[in-house]
Amino acid sequence: MTVLGLDPGLTTTGYGVVTREAGRMRAVAYGAIRTPTTEEAPARLVRLRAEVLELLREHEPDAVALERLLFSTNRKTVMDVARASGVILLAIGEAGLRCAEYSPPEVKLAVTGVGQAEKRQVRYMVTQILGLQSPPSPLDAADALALAVCHHHSVAARRLRSDI
Amino acid sequence: MTVLGLDPGLTTTGYGVVTREAGRMRAVAYGAIRTPTTEEAPARLVRLRAEVLELLREHEPDAVALERLLFSTNRKTVMDVARASGVILLAIGEAGLRCAEYSPPEVKLAVTGVGQAEKRQVRYMVTQILGLQSPPSPLDAADALALAVCHHHSVAARRLRSDI
Repeated sequence: MTVLGLDPGLTTTGYGVVTREAGRMRAVAYGAIRTPTTEEAPARLVRLRAEVLELLREHEPDAVALERLLFSTNRKTVMDVARASGVILLAIGEAGLRCAEYSPPEVKLAVTGVGQAEKRQVRYMVTQILGLQSPPSPLDAADALALAVCHHHSVAARRLRSDI
Repeated sequence: MTVLGLDPGLTTTGYGVVTREAGRMRAVAYGAIRTPTTEEAPARLVRLRAEVLELLREHEPDAVALERLLFSTNRKTVMDVARASGVILLAIGEAGLRCAEYSPPEVKLAVTGVGQAEKRQVRYMVTQILGLQSPPSPLDAADALALAVCHHHSVAARRLRSDI
């Protein structure tokens, strides 16, 4: 099973592709989609949609895990992130896929065992869980990989429950 | 000059097409794009993009006026509206158009002369300004027409200033 994790943003959208076979998780690809701050929102969202569709074509994930937005950060950023996540959800719909959403505390809990863990703890645990040579960079990519790991855990837990 | 006004929403996006010739404004079309609440967000956003692109193709506006979101309403609705507005901005970018954004008080001021006017006052004034037989319905369509009128005023005011 292949999961694409996406940490949405207008300037930077982190992505991470994680497969799970025989209980073992592996990072297939990760990185960040960036759009130029010199362009206006419509043109940037056109780029974002094209790049997300390209990721979906290239990696053919079985599911997509997206960060659920909370309103704790500043308002201007939240609006840009929400708009980017709207376009990402659109691309997921165009690819005929379903999307799971997880809030930052849910992801942190799944990856580190602590809902209020710091970002660098998340990155450290992602590096360990996926057996990476070095910590994934940028941080948005680490968050996206954590989202994918979180979804794998969630699916595995559901399977376990339905097996009992 | 033709302006498409859009009042974004995931469930209902109001639209209004207003032309201005020799200082006279006219409503060419108005109504609402609706997406089924029984479907998940990705599928609904796919519908929204398709319908907005269809409006842009049919009416070939010179500009689009979109409601700028404020964070006064409830959080869940704001997130859906922000996602819908992201997809609308995307469609505007795909059509190679530019987008102007106006906050509700700006629109109210432009249409009624009062920034804190009630929705029914906005609808009444839109009906008068555009010489409509009856008040536009639904309310989202009236808001969209008001956005288009607001943009026409803004462009006219800018021309006047540059002529002096």
